[in-house]
Amino acid sequence: MRKWLLPLIPIFALALPSRGEETNAPAGERIALPPAYKNFRVIGLSQRSDDQSLRAILGNDVAVEAARAGKTNPWPNGAILAKLVWKQKQSAQFPAATIPDAFSSVAFMIKDDAKYAATAGWGWGEWVGLQQKPYDKAGFARECVACHSTVKDQDWVFTRPGELP
Amino acid sequence: MRKWLLPLIPIFALALPSRGEETNAPAGERIALPPAYKNFRVIGLSQRSDDQSLRAILGNDVAVEAARAGKTNPWPNGAILAKLVWKQKQSAQFPAATIPDAFSSVAFMIKDDAKYAATAGWGWGEWVGLQQKPYDKAGFARECVACHSTVKDQDWVFTRPGELP
Ligand code: HEC
Ligand code: HEC
Repeated sequence: MRKWLLPLIPIFALALPSRGEETNAPAGERIALPPAYKNFRVIGLSQRSDDQSLRAILGNDVAVEAARAGKTNPWPNGAILAKLVWKQKQSAQFPAATIPDAFSSVAFMIKDDAKYAATAGWGWGEWVGLQQKPYDKAGFARECVACHSTVKDQDWVFTRPGELP
Repeated sequence: MRKWLLPLIPIFALALPSRGEETNAPAGERIALPPAYKNFRVIGLSQRSDDQSLRAILGNDVAVEAARAGKTNPWPNGAILAKLVWKQKQSAQFPAATIPDAFSSVAFMIKDDAKYAATAGWGWGEWVGLQQKPYDKAGFARECVACHSTVKDQDWVFTRPGELP
C-alpha cells in the first residue's frame, strides 16, 4: 500500500464500525459496554426466586479495592459494578445444588457523580442474551434508578460485599 | 544493628513461623492455601439447599483460560479451582433475593496429575471460617475424592463453566 493512503485507514474504520462496536457504544443515556467485565473480580452473589436466576456481582479494580477497604458509601468515582445473570437449573449430578443454566444478561453501574448527576451519580446499562442486545427503551435508566432508590442510603447499590477472611 | 547479624535473620524467621504460615502451609496430604485466591475470576455459581449456602467457584488464570477455551476434560496441570462458601440469608431490601450471610469456608482443587496421582490428579484443601482453620482430619482427601467421584467423567469437577457472551 502507498504510504499516503495510511492516514485514511482510521477514517474508513470510523465510517464502518463493526456490529459489536455499534451496539456496545454509548447511546442516549446508555453507557458503553465495559470491555473487560468478564475479568472483573467477585464482590457478591444472589439467587432470585422471582425469576429463578443466579447472579454474580463483579467489580473492576476501583470497585474491588473500595469493597475490600469498606469504602462503599459512597462508592468512589470510577467504580464499575457488573451483574451477570443466568437462568438457574437443578444440578443433575448433585440435586441439592442449583446452578447456572443459559446466560440471561449483564447489567452495569458506573460511578461518576458529575457525569451522571441526573441518574443518581451512576451510569446505567444492560445487554441481553449471548448476542448482547442493548436494553435501550427510551428513559430506561429511570427504571433502574427507581428500583435502586430502595437502597439510596447505600449509594443506590443493593449488594453489600460478601464477607471474606 | 551490626551488619554481621543480618544473615541470621532468615534462620530465625524459619524457626518461628507466624501462625498464618503454619496453618496455610501444606501438611500431610493437604495442599498449601493458594495466596491469591480472592483475586481469582469467576467460573461458576451454586446455591445449595442442603446447607442453605451460596457458593462462588473461581479459577486462577490457567483454569479461567481453560474454561473459556472449553478445554476442561481434563483440566490442564496448574489449574486451581476455589469454592468460596457463604451461609445464605434473605435480602432485607429485596425479599425475592437470597444473598450471602457469614463466610463459611473456602475449598480448593489444584490439578497436577503426577504430583497428586494418588488423589485423582488433584490436590485438595479446605479452610474453615474467617480464621481459616484448616480442615485436616486424617485422610480427609479421601472424603473429597469419594464425593467428587460422581463427576469422574468430568475430570472430578462438578462445575461446568457458566455460559458467557
Ligand atoms: C425491579 C427492581 C430492579 C430494577 C428495575 C433494576 N434493578 Fe438492578 N438490582 C436489583 C436488585 C434487587 C439487585 C441486587 C442483586 C440481585 O439480587 O439481583 C440489583 C443489582 C444490580 C447491580 C449490581 C449492584 C447492586 O446494586 O447490587 C447492577 C449493576 C444493576 N442492578 C444494574 C441495573 C440496571 C442497569 C438496571 C436498569 C436497566 C437495573 N439494575 C434495574 C433490582 C433492580
Ligand atoms: C458431599 C459431597 C462433597 C464432598 C464431601 C466434597 N465436595 Fe467439593 N463439591 C461438591 C459439589 C456438589 C460441588 C459443586 C458446587 C456446589 O454446589 O457446592 C463441589 C465443588 C467443589 C469445588 C469447585 C470445583 C467443582 O468441582 O465444582 C472445589 C474446589 C471443591 N468442591 C473442593 C472440595 C474439597 C477440598 C473437599 C474435601 C475437603 C470436597 N470438595 C468435598 C460436593 C462435595
